[in-house]
Amino acid sequence: MEEIKKRVVIVGGGFGGVAAAKPLRRSDVDIALIDRRNYHLFQPLLYQVATAALNPSDIAAPIRRIFRSQKNISVLMGEVVSADLENQLIVTEDQKIRYDYLVMAAGATHSYFGNDQWSETAPGLKKISDATKIRKQVLLAFESAEMETDPEAREACLTFVVIGAGPTGCELAGAMAEIAGQTIPKDFRHVDTTTARVILIEAAPRVLGAFPEKSSESALRQLEELGVEVLLNQMVTDVTPEGVSCGDTFYPARNVLWAAGVKASPIGETLGVELDRAGRVIVEEDLSVPGHPNVFVIGDQAAATDPKTEKLVPGVAQGAMQGGEYVGKLIREEVAALARGNEEPVRKPFSYFDKGNMATIGKHRAVADVGGFQFGGYLAWLAWALVHIVFLIDFRSKVAVGMSWAWTYLFTDRGARLITGTAKVNVKQPPDLD
Amino acid sequence: MEEIKKRVVIVGGGFGGVAAAKPLRRSDVDIALIDRRNYHLFQPLLYQVATAALNPSDIAAPIRRIFRSQKNISVLMGEVVSADLENQLIVTEDQKIRYDYLVMAAGATHSYFGNDQWSETAPGLKKISDATKIRKQVLLAFESAEMETDPEAREACLTFVVIGAGPTGCELAGAMAEIAGQTIPKDFRHVDTTTARVILIEAAPRVLGAFPEKSSESALRQLEELGVEVLLNQMVTDVTPEGVSCGDTFYPARNVLWAAGVKASPIGETLGVELDRAGRVIVEEDLSVPGHPNVFVIGDQAAATDPKTEKLVPGVAQGAMQGGEYVGKLIREEVAALARGNEEPVRKPFSYFDKGNMATIGKHRAVADVGGFQFGGYLAWLAWALVHIVFLIDFRSKVAVGMSWAWTYLFTDRGARLITGTAKVNVKQPPDLD
Repeated sequence: MEEIKKRVVIVGGGFGGVAAAKPLRRSDVDIALIDRRNYHLFQPLLYQVATAALNPSDIAAPIRRIFRSQKNISVLMGEVVSADLENQLIVTEDQKIRYDYLVMAAGATHSYFGNDQWSETAPGLKKISDATKIRKQVLLAFESAEMETDPEAREACLTFVVIGAGPTGCELAGAMAEIAGQTIPKDFRHVDTTTARVILIEAAPRVLGAFPEKSSESALRQLEELGVEVLLNQMVTDVTPEGVSCGDTFYPARNVLWAAGVKASPIGETLGVELDRAGRVIVEEDLSVPGHPNVFVIGDQAAATDPKTEKLVPGVAQGAMQGGEYVGKLIREEVAALARGNEEPVRKPFSYFDKGNMATIGKHRAVADVGGFQFGGYLAWLAWALVHIVFLIDFRSKVAVGMSWAWTYLFTDRGARLITGTAKVNVKQPPDLD
Repeated sequence: MEEIKKRVVIVGGGFGGVAAAKPLRRSDVDIALIDRRNYHLFQPLLYQVATAALNPSDIAAPIRRIFRSQKNISVLMGEVVSADLENQLIVTEDQKIRYDYLVMAAGATHSYFGNDQWSETAPGLKKISDATKIRKQVLLAFESAEMETDPEAREACLTFVVIGAGPTGCELAGAMAEIAGQTIPKDFRHVDTTTARVILIEAAPRVLGAFPEKSSESALRQLEELGVEVLLNQMVTDVTPEGVSCGDTFYPARNVLWAAGVKASPIGETLGVELDRAGRVIVEEDLSVPGHPNVFVIGDQAAATDPKTEKLVPGVAQGAMQGGEYVGKLIREEVAALARGNEEPVRKPFSYFDKGNMATIGKHRAVADVGGFQFGGYLAWLAWALVHIVFLIDFRSKVAVGMSWAWTYLFTDRGARLITGTAKVNVKQPPDLD
């Protein structure tokens, strides 16, 4: 009699999902990894696609390619609609897939805190299509400014507002200031792009709220050196195509980017279990769903509390990767024990190891917080670049990103200044050339 | 009294438009170069974006960047609606621009010979968005095949039909055969991609009709070695989402690519002058429009007859570049003569110098026809690669393309296997995993 293999279904091919699959390499299981995209995305560098420094494919690797030599895994491209924990089924648009173990790693999307109407004007940055949309919007703004003769409209074209001063917000604001001030001024004839304003708005009293205070101060100083206007303790009350309101103050701006909030993937809602305010599944100490020891939720989709520190595991790549590895190994050991006819081993709780935190602000500018030691400027920037190259998933991406960075560094240029898709300059009053 | 400078308006930032602007570098003129895109595209390598070997930005350079140091040129991003030769005006969506000299270099688009309803099913390849659309369609076909259990539907997923066996058609067919046969087989678990069929349909009796017969024979042999099924003397009578009909024969195929015909940009129709059947403006020996010596049409938009050979200048990059350079120099000399108070010099007719022709079919496979000498295989492939690297417009593109090719060559991989935009696998009968 042939024994039916245990089937492990992994939803999501991000940092968490990929990390969960790898420890199962030699396990006697069938793995199905489902993602709506055909690629794994290195999200920490997505802002560099949005700011024309990198190509989409520099930071994306086909999931199939990653698992080319892991023969027990099938990669399926499809949209997961719901999870039916009662009947142990994952439901996609095309099929139902039975699982013995389920690993949910569907990530997060941006949240406009109930103001979803802002999303058209102020795009967030989670997907490659978000990044190319932002790239288009930013590059088109300069094109429009070049043709605009109405002074107020031109100023609005050249005003960039970034809402939210977490790592992504700081990175976007710094990059935008560099583009306008250093990369492109010589390419324009009628507009002085160095007059562009970059405004970074944050509701909290400091930038990089998840970092130590010393890092926040350093980041603030470095942003201001680049010419970014940082507004702290300011709550955005409205976003329109004309600009951004903070209470009584209105900032006319044609370019608004959203980096303020995230919420977990809506698939979590179909599990029928308790979620926190950000839509994350509240998981047990072993990252399983209460009442379903064979169902795990990891990464940005989970609200996991580290039993040692009693703090939430942060929604960063490291958190997802460590959670994925933990769950993959746990399943591997349980499957192995069952195959030997042993009892399942007792599960040790998941514990997050904080390797530190980094954010970059521009060329030679960054902050780092590693092992309780904070540093900024050139050294932090170098460390940031090295760490990100090392963690890129494949050799090709490392080479491509390294080359692009070298180019950007040496020539103060950006290699991917393409406006793709339908695009039209938006000019109130073009010059009279008649 | 300040003398008003002559204004030169160039429509289109392709090979022709860029080549026309460069000789005017030191002329005392104001140049406005208008393009609907912000980038110059190296079209001969566009099929490599469609087949996931290159990134869009590897073969596209911002037009502003190209002319960064040429201060007498303003680059305008905008859509030209019409040309009013009577009043010497170019009309865009936003403004009217008066010209003293006009250079039309708006290129060509694909033609379905009156069957425009085929365009949705059988995309052509002229723009970057065409290339990423084709890339998506091809990659999705393999994803669908992986999930498909219905044998006929799976076979249709794995059948690729390329219509038209000019250089683009041969290049696409060869690349497709390489992807299915060499790049991706190990990435799939349920489908054997080496069973994919690539069918190349051509109405004429040979492939590469513009090449010498010896090159056509060599190309045919090389295509067949790669497993491409080449059908000659076959006229496509219908294209539907289910497949392609040639008279009574129906080829079920879910992937159909159009490489059969082009027509000139429709802007030519607004000139009010005689066009040929492909919509090209029939120009004089100096590439000017009959009756308008200050209006020139070059590149794919023009039907220019070389007075020496009495043959049409071919619609290739070389033809556009040589025409552009000729017109740019002619304007430079006329402006200089007028400034000195001299009479305009007599115009010498434009003569096309044929540097030869090349097409690649796959790794180590190509044909070349240079100086009446035809060769194929490895040597032609090497020559093709060198020539294309040399002609890429900027150093960054040369490096990026060189690196990507080295990668593809060494690892039989393709670096840009991303399915972007809205994408969903299309499966008739998914596997039963319930």
